[in-house]
Amino acid sequence: MGTVILDADAVTESTQITEVIDAVEGAFGAYARGDVQMPAKSYVDLPQYNGDFRSMPAYIETDDWDAAAVKWVNVHPDNPDEEGLPTVMGTLIYSDPETGFPLAVMDATDLTRLRTGAAAAVATRHLAREDAASLGLVGAGVQAHSQLEAISRARDIETVVISDLDDEVRAAFIEEYGDEFDVQEGDVAEAAACDVVSTTTPVRDPIVEAVGDETHVNAMGADAEGKHEIADEVLQEAKLVIDDHEQCTHSGEINVPWSEGVLDDDDIHGEIGDVVAGKIDGRTADDGVTVFDSTGLAIQDVAAAHVVYHDAVAGDAGAEFDMVGQE
Amino acid sequence: MGTVILDADAVTESTQITEVIDAVEGAFGAYARGDVQMPAKSYVDLPQYNGDFRSMPAYIETDDWDAAAVKWVNVHPDNPDEEGLPTVMGTLIYSDPETGFPLAVMDATDLTRLRTGAAAAVATRHLAREDAASLGLVGAGVQAHSQLEAISRARDIETVVISDLDDEVRAAFIEEYGDEFDVQEGDVAEAAACDVVSTTTPVRDPIVEAVGDETHVNAMGADAEGKHEIADEVLQEAKLVIDDHEQCTHSGEINVPWSEGVLDDDDIHGEIGDVVAGKIDGRTADDGVTVFDSTGLAIQDVAAAHVVYHDAVAGDAGAEFDMVGQE
Repeated sequence: MGTVILDADAVTESTQITEVIDAVEGAFGAYARGDVQMPAKSYVDLPQYNGDFRSMPAYIETDDWDAAAVKWVNVHPDNPDEEGLPTVMGTLIYSDPETGFPLAVMDATDLTRLRTGAAAAVATRHLAREDAASLGLVGAGVQAHSQLEAISRARDIETVVISDLDDEVRAAFIEEYGDEFDVQEGDVAEAAACDVVSTTTPVRDPIVEAVGDETHVNAMGADAEGKHEIADEVLQEAKLVIDDHEQCTHSGEINVPWSEGVLDDDDIHGEIGDVVAGKIDGRTADDGVTVFDSTGLAIQDVAAAHVVYHDAVAGDAGAEFDMVGQE
Repeated sequence: MGTVILDADAVTESTQITEVIDAVEGAFGAYARGDVQMPAKSYVDLPQYNGDFRSMPAYIETDDWDAAAVKWVNVHPDNPDEEGLPTVMGTLIYSDPETGFPLAVMDATDLTRLRTGAAAAVATRHLAREDAASLGLVGAGVQAHSQLEAISRARDIETVVISDLDDEVRAAFIEEYGDEFDVQEGDVAEAAACDVVSTTTPVRDPIVEAVGDETHVNAMGADAEGKHEIADEVLQEAKLVIDDHEQCTHSGEINVPWSEGVLDDDDIHGEIGDVVAGKIDGRTADDGVTVFDSTGLAIQDVAAAHVVYHDAVAGDAGAEFDMVGQE
């Protein structure tokens, strides 16, 4: 028995996105039922390099499968300019929970984007109108690509409106998706009027002032204290679903209005896991705007890694090593 | 730039044990000076499999180098009988602190033994008599091998007395080391009379009742509440050095007498890092018995990984992958 090494290419080449969405949905449901173990992230702060590392271990048990892994991920914002490297890189060790054997080591850079897209797709499944056909993207970078690829598996998306200040980023997006979808360039208001909207920007002053009457918003950008993409009025009036109360109130889209007392528990419908598990409802006929505040949980990584590993083995991707020295 | 994959063979083939001892000594010193980051271990408990996982991230800064890594290690005691696998297996991700780039992924099964042997060697450097020439080993399993290999770099060991109830384990030890050292079989008392003694057994009732007048003991076996190898009287009378106050009082050699009130802070000379950093003395001319209580710290793994990585790159060991997808 060997350990499979999956580099960035191997992670993406065999992985079925719909399976990742299903697995992340299963993970959210398991979380709501208490069938996961997810210790708090551990931080190693390196102010001398303007960077940090986070260690994210977790275990998930669903009716069909269980899985354990740790993701080790950095955030070094100076990397693109100074090193020609991504700000965020990740590596994940995927282990057999029954024996502890390391089944795989995989790049988790694309995996992080994949599982983030999958979370938005799960929320879209439960919170967007069934007949949603247009997707607005506020920010058209790599995260926006993952949003379209996942959300288009949750709803029959025909039209995509992209909004980004960077001409090159918009052009790259159209180049990649223009054949498959009706991709239009627009301003933030035009993107935000779509049936589904995903925001993936790092802004600290809200740029989405209003959305369509029955729009579902995936608020993906805020991942630290002070970040905030959507106007307070939109959040206050929406059916608001979060991924995790602790993380969202500290570093998610709602962290700023929460800390200012503009939003409190009465404004939060509940966690996405409770929606998936059927403990609370998703969109109902009466609902107008819905918002999903996503901060990203270690169980999403474990769920995505579970699919990546099994699809890779089935597709004969990656290289096998006798890591532990059993042979 | 690639990520180097180092399997068990690659980890051991190029690594210079003396360099690992020096690096672990440097890590202990950095710990005493406050130049490390070592979040508490995170546990994922899996009672349904009689096992668990631990996530151990850390960062070390010394005058000469800095290093960051996470070790992901399991403990599944049923593995040897039921699965033909080791109880403990580890995998480590070694990253560039300046950029977060994953420089290497390595097997940490042998690495864990290597860094544990190195800790004993560091303690032996500071706490054993300069002219120590005999090493007693209570327990002759794989940990005992690592003890001899490391400690023989700290003192000029000529005679080794091994004590183990298992004939096969003793025979394997003599087969491996009989040519290089004068290896004698003995009972626990004979092993414990040597100049340096290392105990590596999982017992819960002390088996070492007495040691030589100026013996240095490396108490390596206790790693959980209730484990205890050395008689309380020996611990009470010894100059007692620990690796970490929190860990040792909870799960180290001293945890049982500590919880019973037999030992308290007045009985503890200090932490090994303070000895290395020169804040407190090691062995002095007046000292009789010395004891080092080792529980194992994440910084030891990071220090060992630092050496393994650099020796592997220098020795062209391992296989390079474009894990992050930069090329």
